[in-house]
Order: sequence, then C-alpha cells, then structure tokens
Amino acid sequence: MIEESEKIYFQDQWPDIATQCWGCGRDNEHGLQIKSYWEGDEAVCEWKPKEYHIVFPGIISAGIIASILDCHCGNTAIAYIYKNEGRALGQDPFPSIVTGTLTVKYMLPTPTRQPITLRAKVEEATKKKIIVSCSVYSRKKLCAKGEVIIIRVG
Amino acid sequence: MIEESEKIYFQDQWPDIATQCWGCGRDNEHGLQIKSYWEGDEAVCEWKPKEYHIVFPGIISAGIIASILDCHCGNTAIAYIYKNEGRALGQDPFPSIVTGTLTVKYMLPTPTRQPITLRAKVEEATKKKIIVSCSVYSRKKLCAKGEVIIIRVG
Repeated sequence: MIEESEKIYFQDQWPDIATQCWGCGRDNEHGLQIKSYWEGDEAVCEWKPKEYHIVFPGIISAGIIASILDCHCGNTAIAYIYKNEGRALGQDPFPSIVTGTLTVKYMLPTPTRQPITLRAKVEEATKKKIIVSCSVYSRKKLCAKGEVIIIRVG
Repeated sequence: MIEESEKIYFQDQWPDIATQCWGCGRDNEHGLQIKSYWEGDEAVCEWKPKEYHIVFPGIISAGIIASILDCHCGNTAIAYIYKNEGRALGQDPFPSIVTGTLTVKYMLPTPTRQPITLRAKVEEATKKKIIVSCSVYSRKKLCAKGEVIIIRVG
C-alpha cells in the first residue's frame, strides 16, 4: 500500500490536450474523473460511484464499469510508454493512443455503497500495440475483469 | 425505415423497477436515456451524445460507446424474451438479466457532431443465455461493433 501523499496520479501529469476525457479528464466536470497511479508494476485506480451510476438501485451499471476499466487501462498504457522510454509522465510529446478492443467479464454485482478498486497490468507491448489486463474489486471481492487492446497512433 | 410515430420504444414500456439505469433508464436524469425499438429482427437505437461525452474534443469516448452498446443489447434481449414468450412489452413479470461478457471492437473515431445509430440482433438464445451482436454507425460509417453475452437471472 502507498500513502496518499506518495501517489503520483497519471491524470494530474497530463498536458492540457488530454484533460477533457469523459472517463478520466480532470477538466471534464461531467465526467468520472478517475485517477490512476503505479503501485509497483500494477496501476491502481480507486473510484467512488455516484448514486446514479446504477443499473438497479445499489448496483453499478455494466457500462460504467466498462468505461472506468477502459480509461484506466488507457492511462496505464500511456504511463507505461513514458516509463519504457525513460521519460517523465506528461513530458512532450504526449503519446497518442486509441482503444482497439475492449472486453469485460462480469462476475458479481458491484455495489455502489463503497469505492471500487481497479488493478491493471501491461501484459504485452510492441511499438504499436499494448495489451492491458485489469481486475475490478469491491473491497476484496473480484467483481469483473477485462482486457483492453490499445493501439498507439502517435 | 419506420416513421417516428410508429416506433415503440422498449424503455417506455418497462415497469417502474427498470427505469433508473444510467444507460437507459427514462427516470435517470443524469443518464444517457437511450431508446431502442424493433425494425424487423433488428433493434435500433439512435442517440445524440452531449459535447462532454468525449475522449478528445469532437470524438466520443470508448466508454460511452461501450455503455450504449451494452444497454441497447440488454434491452434487445429483454424485448426478445417478451417477443419469444408472446407477451406484450413490459408485462409482469419483467425478465431479469445481467451482462455476462461485453466485447467492443473500435474501428473508426466516432464524431460527436451527429447522432449515432446502433443496430443489434439476437444471434443465439437459450433459456439462460442470449447473445446479442451490435454495430455502431455514424451516418453510414461502421465505427464499432460488439457482442454482449446476456445471462437471464429471473
């Protein structure tokens, strides 16, 4: 576990061109504003849903989980590119990526009453493609897991 | 093409227990409020993003597309169950479903400046499992496609 003061949130390092995203943009006031940080080789995201991010009262919607998983994995891929190139997070040029394929398997209903934690890891990486796996926990319970194939476009 | 006055939106037929969903609930004022209707064997959803549903200015976020695709396919599965059982949409008991697996492949950036159209179709169905495929268009361009494995739980 990392102390709050030691967490370096990827999204806080990104330049202004990358702060509008609905999932993770710090300047998108209507968005989910997720934050991701390294804990060893894993990127971690802790996020608390709003009471309206539901499918039924008390249960987070599958789309919201997919959105957070996609964005957290995308941010993980960008942070990985920086790490791999020995550059500081957010340094110019900012790597351009897009989601190629998103897959999410839902194992348990995920309650809204407590934060969720996502743990992502780069599984494979070439110059053009980064595959990131991700697990979604509610407390210690694994509620969903997924994989994002990310394509580097710049 | 079906005239607007002839479209019977699934979500307008659902009972009050199913109107809170962030993706499709007619009573979730913070949600996407998608609407789905039959056009032959295909279920169609036409939806206009807000200017903040973006990854970058002008381009819809992958998470929003995944959310709409998931919800539209879920609604399609429920409507299919009603059709298959020869019951009117929304009649009691309302079928209970959950998303098992969601897969989305992104082919082209999807612009926010015009509505998107989703076309979904039931590919396989057993008592417990319904597989729905779905394509996402911006005008005539296929921008994404996906599949949702839906589990019936009640």
